[in-house]
Amino acid sequence: MSFTVTILGSSSATPTSKRNPTSLLVNMNYKYFLVDCGEGTQMQLRKYKFKLQKIKHIFISHLHGDHFFGLIGLISTLHLLGRDEDLHIYANENLKEVIDLQLKVSGTELVFPLIFHPTNQNEPEIIFEDEQHFVKSFPLNHRLPTTGFLFSEKKRTRKIRKDFLNSVDVPVEEIPKIKAGSDFIDNDGKVYLNKSITSNPLNSRSFAFCSDTSYFEPVIETIHHANLLYHEATFMQELAEVARDKFHSTAAEAATIAKKAMVNELIIGHFSARYNSLDELLSEARAIFPATSLAEDGNEFKIISEKSIIQDNR
Amino acid sequence: MSFTVTILGSSSATPTSKRNPTSLLVNMNYKYFLVDCGEGTQMQLRKYKFKLQKIKHIFISHLHGDHFFGLIGLISTLHLLGRDEDLHIYANENLKEVIDLQLKVSGTELVFPLIFHPTNQNEPEIIFEDEQHFVKSFPLNHRLPTTGFLFSEKKRTRKIRKDFLNSVDVPVEEIPKIKAGSDFIDNDGKVYLNKSITSNPLNSRSFAFCSDTSYFEPVIETIHHANLLYHEATFMQELAEVARDKFHSTAAEAATIAKKAMVNELIIGHFSARYNSLDELLSEARAIFPATSLAEDGNEFKIISEKSIIQDNR
Repeated sequence: MSFTVTILGSSSATPTSKRNPTSLLVNMNYKYFLVDCGEGTQMQLRKYKFKLQKIKHIFISHLHGDHFFGLIGLISTLHLLGRDEDLHIYANENLKEVIDLQLKVSGTELVFPLIFHPTNQNEPEIIFEDEQHFVKSFPLNHRLPTTGFLFSEKKRTRKIRKDFLNSVDVPVEEIPKIKAGSDFIDNDGKVYLNKSITSNPLNSRSFAFCSDTSYFEPVIETIHHANLLYHEATFMQELAEVARDKFHSTAAEAATIAKKAMVNELIIGHFSARYNSLDELLSEARAIFPATSLAEDGNEFKIISEKSIIQDNR
Repeated sequence: MSFTVTILGSSSATPTSKRNPTSLLVNMNYKYFLVDCGEGTQMQLRKYKFKLQKIKHIFISHLHGDHFFGLIGLISTLHLLGRDEDLHIYANENLKEVIDLQLKVSGTELVFPLIFHPTNQNEPEIIFEDEQHFVKSFPLNHRLPTTGFLFSEKKRTRKIRKDFLNSVDVPVEEIPKIKAGSDFIDNDGKVYLNKSITSNPLNSRSFAFCSDTSYFEPVIETIHHANLLYHEATFMQELAEVARDKFHSTAAEAATIAKKAMVNELIIGHFSARYNSLDELLSEARAIFPATSLAEDGNEFKIISEKSIIQDNR
C-alpha cells in the first residue's frame, strides 16, 4: 500500500530557475490528490512522468496566484485530452468565477464534469471521504482566507487470526464485531478473548499540508501525530518580523509547529526567491526539529509505516 | 542595430515535455515586445536569461488558453518585483475582465500602471508606434477573434554624403528635404542631383506573426515582403481537413502563404503534440518554400539585413 508525497513546486510567490511555484501530489494507495497548482504544474507532472488523467481531486489552499495560476491550464489540457471522468476542485468559493470566466472567454465547454466544492476557512471540516481515506481542511492564518489539508487513512480494524477462523465456526455477523474489538463466545459458552484471536491493525498514515500561514498554533490539534508535515518556511528567523507582516512563517517557526504537533517528519518549502542556497533554512529548522527535509522540485517522500519515511530524488 | 525573434514556446494547445505553449520575444533595436504568453512563459524568459522588466509591450493574438494563460503569472511577478513602469497589453477586449478578476480574487493592487489596448479583429490597424518602429495588428481566421502582428522598422530616410556636407554650405532647413529625396540648388543656382549627394538608406526590417489561423490569403497584403514570417503549421497536409475544421494550417499551407507573400524566411511553429519528430513538417514546408526553419523553444533568429537571417540555438 503506497502513500507518497511528490514535490512539484517549492518556491514562494515568484518562481526561480530551479523552483516552480507551490504544488504537490499526494498518492494515498493509488488515489491521486493534487495540492495547490501554481503556474507550470502540468509541465512538472509531465516532467516527472505522471499521467495527468489519474488526478481526480484538486485542493487549492488559497487564491494567491502562486497557488492556483496553473489550474486553468491543467483543466484545459485534461479537456483537450478528452477526459470524461469527474474532476473535483476544493477551494475558496471565488475560484469558481475565475475558472468559469476563463472557460467562457476561450469558448471552451468542458467535455467532463467539473465539480466545485467551496472550502470552509473558519473551522476544520472533512471535505473528502471514501472507505479507506479522508481529507480534512482546516484554517491557516494568512492575508487571504486559507486552509491547510490533512490527508489520512481511516483507522483500520483489527485483523482476525487465520488459525482461529480455521478452527472455530464463527457466524458471519460476528466478524465485524470481532474486528471492532469484541470477544467471541461460541455455542458452548466458551469465551475467546479478542486479543488472543486478533492481531493489531496497521497504523493509519497521514500527511498534513500547511502553506501559506504565519506561526499559528491552532493547527496543532488537527495535524497532531501526522507522519509527515509540509509546513511553509518562507524566511529565516532573522526575518521573523517580515514573516509576521506578510503572514508567513520562518524555518524555526515551522520546526516549532512540527515539534509541538509531535509529527514524525517535517518538510519545509515555499522558500523566498532571495535564498539561493537553502542550507541555512534547513539548519535552522533542524536545530529545533531534527527530522526535517527540504522540499525540492521532484523529491518524493514515501510514508512506509508510522515510523519510517524514505526520500527519493528524481 | 539588433532585430531578433526568440522562440519561447512552440507547441500548440497542450504543452509537451520539450515544447511550451506559444510565446516569442521580439527585440527591435533593444525595445522588447512579447507576443503571446502561454503558461510557463515567465519561466522560459528566466531560462533564457532575459530580464523580465525590460518588457514594455505584450501582444496577445487571441484568447485560447495556450496563448494567454501565462500572462497573469508574468504580471504578478512584475508586480512582486516592484515594477514601476507602464506595461501595455494589446489583446481582445475580453482579456481585461479576466486579468481584473484574477487580481481582485488574489487581493492584488498592482504597483505599476497596466494599460490595456483592445485590438481590432476586423481590419489591419497600427497599434503601436514610436520614432523608428511600428506594430500593426491584422485579422487572422480562427475559431475565436484573432489577430496577427507585424513588427516593423519605419522606412528610413536617405543618408546625405559627408563629403558633400563638408564642401557645400547647406541651410539646416534643407537637410530633411534632401533626406526625403529632393535635389539641392545652391545660391549660385547650381543643381546637385539627389542621387549624387545621398546614399541609399538601410532597408527597414520587419517580422510578421501569424498564429492561429486557417489558410487565409488576406494576410498576404499586410505581411508582403516581410524579412521573417512566423506562421503556424499545426498539422501535416495529410490532415488538411482536420486543420480546416479546427481553423488551423498545415505546413504546406504556411509555406504557400510565405511564398505568395514573398517573405525572405519562414519559421513554422504551433505544432500538434501528436508529432514527436518535426522533420516531416519541415520537409513538407521546404518543398514549397525552401527558406523554412522550425520554431523550437530557445531558438533565436537575427534579422541582419533584408537578405540575411541567422539562427542561434540556445
